[in-house]
Amino acid sequence: MISNLKGTFSNISNNIKRSAIREILKLTQNPEIISFAGGLPAPESFPVDNLEEIVSTMLHEEGPASLQYDATEGVIELRELLLKRYQDEGVDCSLDNLIITTASQQGLDLVGKIFINSGDTVICGLPSYLGGIGAFTSYGAKMEGIPMDEEGMSAIALEEKLEELKKIGKKPKFIYIIPDFQNPTGITMPESRRLEIIALAHKYDVLIVEDSPYREIRFEGKSQRMMYELDNDNHVITLGTFSKIFAPGFRIGWVLAPAEINDKIVIAKQSADLCTPTFVQKIAARYMTSGHFEPNLQRTIEMYHKRRDAMLEQFDLLMPEGVSWTRPEGGLFLFITLPENVDAQELFYKAVENKVAFVTGNVFYCDGSGKNTLRINFSYVNEEKSVIGVQRLAAIIKEEILSASKA
Amino acid sequence: MISNLKGTFSNISNNIKRSAIREILKLTQNPEIISFAGGLPAPESFPVDNLEEIVSTMLHEEGPASLQYDATEGVIELRELLLKRYQDEGVDCSLDNLIITTASQQGLDLVGKIFINSGDTVICGLPSYLGGIGAFTSYGAKMEGIPMDEEGMSAIALEEKLEELKKIGKKPKFIYIIPDFQNPTGITMPESRRLEIIALAHKYDVLIVEDSPYREIRFEGKSQRMMYELDNDNHVITLGTFSKIFAPGFRIGWVLAPAEINDKIVIAKQSADLCTPTFVQKIAARYMTSGHFEPNLQRTIEMYHKRRDAMLEQFDLLMPEGVSWTRPEGGLFLFITLPENVDAQELFYKAVENKVAFVTGNVFYCDGSGKNTLRINFSYVNEEKSVIGVQRLAAIIKEEILSASKA
Repeated sequence: MISNLKGTFSNISNNIKRSAIREILKLTQNPEIISFAGGLPAPESFPVDNLEEIVSTMLHEEGPASLQYDATEGVIELRELLLKRYQDEGVDCSLDNLIITTASQQGLDLVGKIFINSGDTVICGLPSYLGGIGAFTSYGAKMEGIPMDEEGMSAIALEEKLEELKKIGKKPKFIYIIPDFQNPTGITMPESRRLEIIALAHKYDVLIVEDSPYREIRFEGKSQRMMYELDNDNHVITLGTFSKIFAPGFRIGWVLAPAEINDKIVIAKQSADLCTPTFVQKIAARYMTSGHFEPNLQRTIEMYHKRRDAMLEQFDLLMPEGVSWTRPEGGLFLFITLPENVDAQELFYKAVENKVAFVTGNVFYCDGSGKNTLRINFSYVNEEKSVIGVQRLAAIIKEEILSASKA
Repeated sequence: MISNLKGTFSNISNNIKRSAIREILKLTQNPEIISFAGGLPAPESFPVDNLEEIVSTMLHEEGPASLQYDATEGVIELRELLLKRYQDEGVDCSLDNLIITTASQQGLDLVGKIFINSGDTVICGLPSYLGGIGAFTSYGAKMEGIPMDEEGMSAIALEEKLEELKKIGKKPKFIYIIPDFQNPTGITMPESRRLEIIALAHKYDVLIVEDSPYREIRFEGKSQRMMYELDNDNHVITLGTFSKIFAPGFRIGWVLAPAEINDKIVIAKQSADLCTPTFVQKIAARYMTSGHFEPNLQRTIEMYHKRRDAMLEQFDLLMPEGVSWTRPEGGLFLFITLPENVDAQELFYKAVENKVAFVTGNVFYCDGSGKNTLRINFSYVNEEKSVIGVQRLAAIIKEEILSASKA
């Protein structure tokens, strides 16, 4: 080995942290553990039966073209279908605005890559999706966390932060927001808050990165217009994905952004992976027009709706005094806040001993706070198991609160 | 739009150049053009007929698991199969050394990401694969080109450069080498030269990145041992891919590297795309054990062998005095050198007018030289068309030499 390998790694490499979630997930592999930890879609939601025919038809009709390189921007028929979905919704966009990425994680990485120099400021919610924070900090971003209320990121706190930064001559590269069924809190931002934040983005001349992997998974309430649509001045970059509405194993996402920005992302993608696999893109396009996409999405939504309801019912029954949780209108996650003197990390080890798992909330706080919070996934585990899991979880939370009050 | 978008892009974004090849390829889309420009495998080489059954069986046997997230390191069965191929060849390696990437372009990007700080030196051949140079310079690498002879990168020139850099206190992050049927020259490095270069890597304490997408496509002569195998001191990182031996539209590659380095690449990959599509990885693993992989590879090799022979035959017949070219023992490319006073860029426009295309060689020279060179792909166009293409090409080269001698 070369003499000083450690010293040979780049600053970026030293900036990148091993995903805390992935490490947690390794501890929860034991099949006896009921895991609310991952962010996995339910395997029952995947359209396994439809795919055989779709792939077979594709191979017959397109043959080699489905196995060849394709454009860095993505397979044209898939881009057009996604565009049409947005246009049908009333979003003003064209092919120049939409490109395919190797799932939205690549979207986050490429956005980080084209905007962030080491030391640049990026604003996010407290808490926020770990994979977003990880991608941005890898390029040296300094994350500034903004507290959230029941409507998402606080516009008041955001303006204070923007003003504070302005006074010291700093302009954030962008504001990172997951407006629909946020990961990890499950909170959805109403239109009024979206508009307030967009107004601040205009006032302080800052971009918004709208990460939207869960938007289509709505159980109840009114669908909110995307920040991309509400903005009328090219301040918003939106990331979408098939991971929660089709199959994460296809790794297909997309970026909807002002043409000048997408052009930079395409150039960055050329050197990142040339193009997203043609084979899966063409299957996804055919799946979208197969007649199976919408009904399967509806079934998935119903399934998660039931799972959320079953979980909330148990929470209401079993959770001790002093514990609060969000009641998301959709998505995959809810968020628990324990009394301040209870440490979720200690709870985690006891939970795993008692065969139930979650992700500690603090990993989503860029300032290291949130030590008394937990993220709970309700999409993966079926209702029967979920009930048992919540019983186990509620029991150890009770114990932990009791022992914390004695300490 | 925000006020100074251009100034908002990162240094990396400003470092990344739009791929010159991709721009050239756009000019050659006209179906009447016989294109030797791309690096595309022959569509006839793709195992379209075998895939229907493989996918169908996979969906029946594995169902949802083929559509779910999988490990960042890659699908375990595929990693084990690739490892076994290397071990059967005598290479000392284990699972810690092999991870899957979203084709070898991602391998190049991640290697760049974990090693290169802005201003770091990376050494490459003159010429070298553009996508490698592009990935490294995106992270701010300063490329130092080393002249090549008929055995690849000159060890003498390499030592001179390493010594020169040492004197000014600089150590390159790595030496980038494509030892087998190099892109763009088609040159293969014999074992003696590989050993000389490895000895220099040891002496000067520098890593080697061995990019090996074509190694399996050998028409004649003796297969050379990989630099990874020849090295006995963890100085070599090797990048492999299915793009030329199965299907580029699957975007599956791999990195074979010392465990400590692969560990860093895995962490970087987590934030780049979480994992390579499970669906295509599992198909690839099944394809490798289907009994179709080796026979199809043999058919591909024979096809390209014939195409190379047909092309060389025409070259020998038609190319005017003063033009030389490589005679690769495998791979996809050969390289033409014109008289020094002939400009390949001007030739290119005339070629496209005359319905034949190539890539100008200068795009592969990190120092901007090579203006009288061309890269010719012989894998994509069949023999019949290739003969016509070479006739067109030879005719305009003749004209161009004549007009240059008059100028």
